[in-house]
Amino acid sequence: MGAKERKRVPRAVREQEMLDAAVESFARHGYRAASMDDIAEAAGVSKPLVYQYLHSKEELFTACVRRESATLISAIREATGLEAGQVMPADRQLWNGLCAFFAHTAAHPHGWAVLHQQARTQGEPFATQVAVLRAEMVEVVTRLIGSAAQDAGCDGALAAREVSGLAHALVGSAESMAEWANSRQSDPPSPKETAATLMSLCWPGLENLLNGVRWKPTR
Amino acid sequence: MGAKERKRVPRAVREQEMLDAAVESFARHGYRAASMDDIAEAAGVSKPLVYQYLHSKEELFTACVRRESATLISAIREATGLEAGQVMPADRQLWNGLCAFFAHTAAHPHGWAVLHQQARTQGEPFATQVAVLRAEMVEVVTRLIGSAAQDAGCDGALAAREVSGLAHALVGSAESMAEWANSRQSDPPSPKETAATLMSLCWPGLENLLNGVRWKPTR
Repeated sequence: MGAKERKRVPRAVREQEMLDAAVESFARHGYRAASMDDIAEAAGVSKPLVYQYLHSKEELFTACVRRESATLISAIREATGLEAGQVMPADRQLWNGLCAFFAHTAAHPHGWAVLHQQARTQGEPFATQVAVLRAEMVEVVTRLIGSAAQDAGCDGALAAREVSGLAHALVGSAESMAEWANSRQSDPPSPKETAATLMSLCWPGLENLLNGVRWKPTR
Repeated sequence: MGAKERKRVPRAVREQEMLDAAVESFARHGYRAASMDDIAEAAGVSKPLVYQYLHSKEELFTACVRRESATLISAIREATGLEAGQVMPADRQLWNGLCAFFAHTAAHPHGWAVLHQQARTQGEPFATQVAVLRAEMVEVVTRLIGSAAQDAGCDGALAAREVSGLAHALVGSAESMAEWANSRQSDPPSPKETAATLMSLCWPGLENLLNGVRWKPTR
């Protein structure tokens, strides 16, 4: 393909192709080991063009983290009806959110590896960006538990601190299951199966807590 | 204190003091930024003595990861009765294990930060050591669910794959809650409160699953 033909590809499209190649390379080799030469080659462009568009390896990685975070959180927000201000029962909302989360992380395993394994371990500014994504996921779940508590007519029965702990537990369990599901070489569960397992594990207890029923060590 | 008096401290004791100082420094500053000068000073010894005993920064970090992993997993194994081959109801076993986990991570916040935040992000050989610890925690929970299934007379009702997913969900939720509890500046929950929240969230669903009762999206 000649240089003239290449130029027909708009910059925005070309940048996305560079990010696709970069996400895969960072996921496979890690931030430090990934090479700009390989990324340029995989994107089908010259290395100077990568530098012209994304400036540096750090900025390229930042752009990857930003894009993968944004698409994941928007998939969750859309599925839970938060974008449209939709009202739905809390269990349906949690189910939709988990299905979207596991579907997205299964469809974008390299993006998930960049966020979950690479970005939060490379120091600043990446760790902060991933912390922001995590805070957004916790926020979605916190709002969900809060509105479920209102629905159950037991608003205030759960202390804000415990709601925060529950939201962190749910996000941590979903992150861990996504990593587990993506790492299974054979017989991987479907995103819906993973979501159903986590709903079956967590919803009965959450419903109990919303109704003031707790597990007690002495029973 | 004179050099003669220093010599009275046995090597094993001195090494533990070096590890104490190193764990705190690695947790506070990260593996790369932590300085051997500061670690030696905090341990009250000369830098050459640190190198004589632990050889290099990498070996020092490895020794920290190994010690912190070993004490955490042995606290969990002892609490769940695995060390002594004790038999106890599954909910009591899970409760004991969670209490031990949250008590240990609260009492050793720097050790937990080294394992959870530093070690798994610094490449090999550290990542593998932390993966081994995580696999041991998953293994404890997997055995626990397996024996609970036997107790409930429903052995085989849960596919091995789902038990594996549940174990990863439980370990992920506990890791996430420990990080959350240790990061709370004010009003931190006690280890027992955190364990009780997670038991209340997860035990009812786990008990249901053991009895073949699942959450269904259509209900």
